[in-house]
Amino acid sequence: MLFSIPTVIKEINKASESYPYGEEPKELYEPIRYLMALGGKRMRPLLTVLTYYMFQEDYKKAIGPSLAVEVFHNFSLMHDDIMDKAPLRRGKPTVHEKWNTNIAILSGDVMLVKAYDILNTCDAKILPDALRLFNDTATGVCEGQQWDMNFETENSVTVEQYLHMIKLKTAVLLGFSMELGGLLAGVDKATLSALRTCGTSAGIGFQLTDDVLDVYGDAATFGKQVGGDILANKKTYLLIRALEKAEGASKKQLQDLLSGKKKVSDAEKVEQVTRLYNELGIREEAEKRIQEYFDAAFHALQSIKGSIYRKHYLKDYLQALIQRQQ
Amino acid sequence: MLFSIPTVIKEINKASESYPYGEEPKELYEPIRYLMALGGKRMRPLLTVLTYYMFQEDYKKAIGPSLAVEVFHNFSLMHDDIMDKAPLRRGKPTVHEKWNTNIAILSGDVMLVKAYDILNTCDAKILPDALRLFNDTATGVCEGQQWDMNFETENSVTVEQYLHMIKLKTAVLLGFSMELGGLLAGVDKATLSALRTCGTSAGIGFQLTDDVLDVYGDAATFGKQVGGDILANKKTYLLIRALEKAEGASKKQLQDLLSGKKKVSDAEKVEQVTRLYNELGIREEAEKRIQEYFDAAFHALQSIKGSIYRKHYLKDYLQALIQRQQ
Repeated sequence: MLFSIPTVIKEINKASESYPYGEEPKELYEPIRYLMALGGKRMRPLLTVLTYYMFQEDYKKAIGPSLAVEVFHNFSLMHDDIMDKAPLRRGKPTVHEKWNTNIAILSGDVMLVKAYDILNTCDAKILPDALRLFNDTATGVCEGQQWDMNFETENSVTVEQYLHMIKLKTAVLLGFSMELGGLLAGVDKATLSALRTCGTSAGIGFQLTDDVLDVYGDAATFGKQVGGDILANKKTYLLIRALEKAEGASKKQLQDLLSGKKKVSDAEKVEQVTRLYNELGIREEAEKRIQEYFDAAFHALQSIKGSIYRKHYLKDYLQALIQRQQ
Repeated sequence: MLFSIPTVIKEINKASESYPYGEEPKELYEPIRYLMALGGKRMRPLLTVLTYYMFQEDYKKAIGPSLAVEVFHNFSLMHDDIMDKAPLRRGKPTVHEKWNTNIAILSGDVMLVKAYDILNTCDAKILPDALRLFNDTATGVCEGQQWDMNFETENSVTVEQYLHMIKLKTAVLLGFSMELGGLLAGVDKATLSALRTCGTSAGIGFQLTDDVLDVYGDAATFGKQVGGDILANKKTYLLIRALEKAEGASKKQLQDLLSGKKKVSDAEKVEQVTRLYNELGIREEAEKRIQEYFDAAFHALQSIKGSIYRKHYLKDYLQALIQRQQ
């Protein structure tokens, strides 16, 4: 079969479906299978496989280990959803809603252990490095989630703090996903470092795109409620910058909308905050930032020696991430 | 300094105090340091070090890696305490009480990652085995906790199911703790297997001793409320066997005490259930079982080749576990 991204996604899904997560007690293992079967873009394991493929043609060897990053990602979703009291994940009930919180805690714990189990299928030669980098990444993801929770009740969050938070919460795992592909392919240290830079930069760009789509996305394709962040007073890049840039009457209007001092309907709040963003040029600024991060990602990718032909898949994939509308 | 168990415990505590768990955000790392500093018997890392010492004299080399089993154990306590809604741990507020549930979830997650970090200080040669055995153990501990929770609402739990549960929840980690000592010392597979048998058998004996002490322990030395399991209708080895053995009027009395149909004070409930246990010879039966498990542990230890002199420390330590009153 010809190499293609849909084919790789199918193989990743097949690897997950046939992975022996466990059987009994079923309260532990059914939630794992449930969450893994909800799908998603499989962005992280795809990055692992596409990176590996850049260096080695037998991409199937990377499918199994690539599952580690997807299982880890879903573990973090299972626990984050408890903390965020989220009722839905990919349009379906979250694990703590469908079962209960205790099950979501414990099933998540097992899921994290399974991610390590899958990582342990790596060649013994690369295992110490893979484990060290994975641990650093996992630590970072937890730190990012904690900062994110802290920011909810903090009055002033700077752009720098925000970028640090999304780097940890989202981007480092994308960086590790690419690094894992490189480790599996046996590349040198400088290449590993470039891969990490590429994935991490793209990850920050990806998350900032999320912030922009929440306000400016098309409701039909975005898949989430447009303006959800605005209604939740979520301190996104857009809101933080608007609070920094607004002056005088604009500043007061924004603050009154956030504090609820100005009583408006949900639709009016979204509309008025969006108008303020437009007046302040926040969208353009965010898009410029996003472009800078993706430029850094491509620059890092450029520096890497690999099959020019097979590198295209990774490049095209990253390109699609920039242009995504959902 | 001469080798002694108090010395080893001090070194384990020192290793934990100086371990760089992390700094920021402090909500993640303060709970780890808090829980680790609450103390405890340090039974698990001690087993690792005492086992290592049986084969190799330079026991200090095992101190660092032995911290992995203690950190893992405390991670499981942090999450179990959430699930069990426990207000106290070693007489102090639990993490979810002192901070909150979200922090206890996420700080516990990081703690599990740190256990893997510490495990990664093992020699690369033994890492794949150490990681595999650790993953199996961690999975077992989570399964044990889930069975334990399931048993709370299950009407009939058999002795076999109960023994399987405590084996997973408590004993396999003791088995792994000894196995890790063997792995670090570079012993062969047969020895590793005997070490696991020794630790696991002692672990089941240890947990059954807990069940007996809950009823027959001396309030002054036990440290927990005597009769706590009885008041909570906890399906311990004693209660399960009493339900199996009781007949006629005794059976009805026991069932009425459990269901609350017979209205009595807490003190009366403890007294009457204990009297039933006495009449049914439950204590003797449990102690016979405990002796069998410890015999199996010593039998496995007997088969292991190691320094006769240094083996004594491990033997004496296990002996003390049998005779413990707290």
